[in-house]
Amino acid sequence: LCKLAGKPDRESQLTSYVPLDPDFASRVASSFAAQAMMRHLAAELSRVEPGLCEITLPFRAELTQQHGFLHAGAVISIADSAAGYAASSLMPAEAAVLTVELKVNLLAPARGERFVALGRVRRAGRTLTVAEAEVMAWRDGKATAVALLLGTMMTVTGRDFRS
Amino acid sequence: LCKLAGKPDRESQLTSYVPLDPDFASRVASSFAAQAMMRHLAAELSRVEPGLCEITLPFRAELTQQHGFLHAGAVISIADSAAGYAASSLMPAEAAVLTVELKVNLLAPARGERFVALGRVRRAGRTLTVAEAEVMAWRDGKATAVALLLGTMMTVTGRDFRS
Amino acid sequence: LCKLAGKPDRESQLTSYVPLDPDFASRVASSFAAQAMMRHLAAELSRVEPGLCEITLPFRAELTQQHGFLHAGAVISIADSAAGYAASSLMPAEAAVLTVELKVNLLAPARGERFVALGRVRRAGRTLTVAEAEVMAWRDGKATAVALLLGTMMTVTGRDFRS
Amino acid sequence: LCKLAGKPDRESQLTSYVPLDPDFASRVASSFAAQAMMRHLAAELSRVEPGLCEITLPFRAELTQQHGFLHAGAVISIADSAAGYAASSLMPAEAAVLTVELKVNLLAPARGERFVALGRVRRAGRTLTVAEAEVMAWRDGKATAVALLLGTMMTVTGRDFRS
Repeated sequence: LCKLAGKPDRESQLTSYVPLDPDFASRVASSFAAQAMMRHLAAELSRVEPGLCEITLPFRAELTQQHGFLHAGAVISIADSAAGYAASSLMPAEAAVLTVELKVNLLAPARGERFVALGRVRRAGRTLTVAEAEVMAWRDGKATAVALLLGTMMTVTGRDFRS
Repeated sequence: LCKLAGKPDRESQLTSYVPLDPDFASRVASSFAAQAMMRHLAAELSRVEPGLCEITLPFRAELTQQHGFLHAGAVISIADSAAGYAASSLMPAEAAVLTVELKVNLLAPARGERFVALGRVRRAGRTLTVAEAEVMAWRDGKATAVALLLGTMMTVTGRDFRS
Repeated sequence: LCKLAGKPDRESQLTSYVPLDPDFASRVASSFAAQAMMRHLAAELSRVEPGLCEITLPFRAELTQQHGFLHAGAVISIADSAAGYAASSLMPAEAAVLTVELKVNLLAPARGERFVALGRVRRAGRTLTVAEAEVMAWRDGKATAVALLLGTMMTVTGRDFRS
Repeated sequence: LCKLAGKPDRESQLTSYVPLDPDFASRVASSFAAQAMMRHLAAELSRVEPGLCEITLPFRAELTQQHGFLHAGAVISIADSAAGYAASSLMPAEAAVLTVELKVNLLAPARGERFVALGRVRRAGRTLTVAEAEVMAWRDGKATAVALLLGTMMTVTGRDFRS
């Protein structure tokens, strides 16, 4: 479905994708703006490229767990959206993206002033796309990886999945 | 660590656990009350038993994704907390619980008036506990399973993990 | 796709499925017989019902890891096949099943004379089916759960995925 | 536990680790040689570096599934061992490694003459290490990614886990 603009590089895991929809960036931005949950968390869409999406979440006391760290649910929410929109960026204009499943490893307590989830596509298929995300916590100018996500996103077309 | 009060039954997957901490229920309730994120979602702790925890989340427009369903992040937040507190209920009084990793399969769009996450311990160990959760969406008096979680929780003791 | 013969029971997680293909059992048996890997492990198909499949693997020294327990790869192989054939039992006659992804929690060292993987469908969809499996180790007449699997299986039709 | 020899680079995900055990490579090789399962599959240990391990598996008809591709169980076996030994390479000399859990996304049919699993540590902790693996299928001189693994490995010391 998605032609590779460059050849995959096993060591760096960086791949260039050519999007099917030239307006992918504004489509992703509109969809993100329609996610009330992202507003409720006060998360921002900070970067969209073909096969890549970054979401930034400033720390807020409302989003903490019992020890004062960011709740895993908030960490996973931005990681899921980053991975999902990375996948969505490569989908056709009329398609919608659904998360089929995801797995998250929490690497360290989510302590910081700001959390950045970087989602990337690992394999784009017609129906299923595999994407990953990494969440970094920024504290005193230093970044620590706090979560890794690996998940499956589905391209949904040809039916009104909203109803 | 946790002695079985009854013998495990493979078909029903129901197991009775004897808690190490007789005050497990109030300990879980206090910890839940300290999770600002649960308040921010307006989730409620609706049931705690040895090795089991249920969390209920009424639908709110603030928690939706772009199609008006409950955001996967909200679904996973209550599933994670239900599984984590199910694990916590079997831990020693002085211990804290951390989510090591979790995997979620989203089974159907999270559409409903109320969402109920039921977490259960599948294997309690001294350091690691494996727990699962199922999230049901209630709509017009009918329940549909919308998510399954399988995760690993860690017992943390003997150090101040808060700092 | 698959109509429920009975209503789902949240507590027991037991569900009755009506298969689309009345010959599902012989179809699963033929496919299993065609898996050279199952022969190489000396695994046997011990039970097939709608939405359920059981695979039995006797202990063999050839399948161990460095401490003499059954290798996780062998445990996961039978768990994957049990979950996959549980899904396959509910698919149309002409369909094939592919594993999209799976997650396994290893609960205890896989020590025993015989290992039994019980796969069950948790949600059957037209394209994607979510299935789980539990692997029990039998030792001196006593069973211990050694692994839990939760995975996604895909129904493949209408193209020759073999070429 | 493991000091970083260089600073982590978020884009490349390459990190240099300093091993605790200078003889890590021969320790990993001995352990691999003791895995009867790896011999039964005819897998070879092809590379060990601090935090990295590569395992190569030539195609064999005995390891196929019903369509003639490499069975997911074989793919996951080498991915698990590669990730596990990547973790093991950073552990103390007297420690043993156990897989706690793993998740695998199967990206494409495992078709090829040779399969190479590259395991890498993403976060090394005292008790738990998070590692990933990628399995490439080589066919006519071209490599295709067929599986991604993300898992948790445990450092086991101070007790005889073999008995």
